[in-house]
Amino acid sequence: MAEPLFRRVALIGIGLIGSSLARVLRRDSPETHIVACARRAETLEAVRRLKIADETTDDPAAAVADADLVVIATPLSAYAEIAAKIASALADGAIVTDVGSVKEAAIRDLMPAIRDGVHLVPGHPVAGTEHSGPESGFAELFDDRWCILTPPPGTDPSAIAKITALWQLAKMKVVTMPAEHHDRVLAVTSHLPHLIAYTIVGTATALGDDLRSEVIAYSAGGFRDFTRIAASDPVMWRDIFMKNREAVLDVLQRFSEDLTALQRAIRRGEGEVLEDWFIRTRAIRRSVIEAKQA
Amino acid sequence: MAEPLFRRVALIGIGLIGSSLARVLRRDSPETHIVACARRAETLEAVRRLKIADETTDDPAAAVADADLVVIATPLSAYAEIAAKIASALADGAIVTDVGSVKEAAIRDLMPAIRDGVHLVPGHPVAGTEHSGPESGFAELFDDRWCILTPPPGTDPSAIAKITALWQLAKMKVVTMPAEHHDRVLAVTSHLPHLIAYTIVGTATALGDDLRSEVIAYSAGGFRDFTRIAASDPVMWRDIFMKNREAVLDVLQRFSEDLTALQRAIRRGEGEVLEDWFIRTRAIRRSVIEAKQA
Repeated sequence: MAEPLFRRVALIGIGLIGSSLARVLRRDSPETHIVACARRAETLEAVRRLKIADETTDDPAAAVADADLVVIATPLSAYAEIAAKIASALADGAIVTDVGSVKEAAIRDLMPAIRDGVHLVPGHPVAGTEHSGPESGFAELFDDRWCILTPPPGTDPSAIAKITALWQLAKMKVVTMPAEHHDRVLAVTSHLPHLIAYTIVGTATALGDDLRSEVIAYSAGGFRDFTRIAASDPVMWRDIFMKNREAVLDVLQRFSEDLTALQRAIRRGEGEVLEDWFIRTRAIRRSVIEAKQA
Repeated sequence: MAEPLFRRVALIGIGLIGSSLARVLRRDSPETHIVACARRAETLEAVRRLKIADETTDDPAAAVADADLVVIATPLSAYAEIAAKIASALADGAIVTDVGSVKEAAIRDLMPAIRDGVHLVPGHPVAGTEHSGPESGFAELFDDRWCILTPPPGTDPSAIAKITALWQLAKMKVVTMPAEHHDRVLAVTSHLPHLIAYTIVGTATALGDDLRSEVIAYSAGGFRDFTRIAASDPVMWRDIFMKNREAVLDVLQRFSEDLTALQRAIRRGEGEVLEDWFIRTRAIRRSVIEAKQA
């Protein structure tokens, strides 16, 4: 049998993404020894019940000892502390990667753990559902989606190649770009949509009890799609907004200006302004379908 | 065989909703004679090809002659003109209903056609997809969704009962409420979500060519759900915002205030404000699922 891509993988954080990756490794790289690390005992208990790891621990330093791959899949706010805990325990030649949604901050927080001979290849598999926790994971989560790697300049090309191969195993299309660019693109495609969905669902919730039950009953008219997005993990998303603050505020400013323009058109009865806008946005949907992302 | 619910139905406008209702009648009331009326020859040609009507015409007055049910399923901006055209052609005892998303305006625009002995029972089947046109309809569109009727005070109860039975045939749950209340609820559950989705997709489109192709590629992170909503029929939605102006502007104002509060929390680094908000919105998703609207 061929040498597995990674001999020993430490998964620090094993929620939706971490546990889905564990399932991919189980399916496609059964020789790989998987160590799952989580802070909460019930998470580790779930991992054992699901049989998606060979070992479980709540100690990041113990998890990474002798691992040739370390995958950090916790909320972003835990990165700096994890980096401090694993720094001296990382094996020579180990590759550290992550799955976080903000890459400049990920690099800033993880870099202190990266000594000579250890490699940092930050990554972001752009896939997910509104569910969280190890029970919600599944190997097919990544099928045909994009994974964006943002290796800092000077990163060892063979380490990048191995992380590329990892996500290709998960059937992802892998692309590389600068962290700053990633953060700007994702602010538009993911962070702003989530912020808007959270806002609108919150607005509806504040309407008072009688109206609220009706809003829920008649949600099929558009609102329910927002409730799905606004059910995403609160801690993960809190961290994303805290860590990608500048890019999110910038795109939010543009959004607010556009919304004000449409609001003005409604108030003034300028139907043609709305219609022109709506015709333009409909074309975007076709592009998304053609790009096979719908 | 029992008498059909309606002997002769005139469908004025035969897009997604009108053609889906035609398919329901074909399935569950094959004795009913269906007349489809549309302005464009290619729409009528599609109706004939799909065999979802017994007669086609571009003349609303001819369509409604001798009909015991008239269903207006055009964009809202066409109502007043249709009312003028059909007024003298409506048969004694005919029931006029519609499927529009704004009910106060629908009543205002249709009422001039309603003489003594003719009944107006405005309705809104809360169901839809982002597709439009007669080819996009299907009988199951309405299954298990709500249909809201907003009969003006004094409407003949037997006319209301017949329209209730019509939508129950389509497997809808039928409820009655005042038009003004309907417009306020739908402003929250449907009109505001669409306006926001249209805005955000437009904002992303304006980012410049290189960024735009990336926004489309990485749309799986949340954006693609908005593109689906923002692909809805431009004319239909232009009319909804023009006709439900006050309710939409009111809820939009609340939304903007909430968004500003979250923007402020991001700028000031107040993570706990965001987390509290996100925990609250997650609970709403559960309510939507429990209400079987997800």
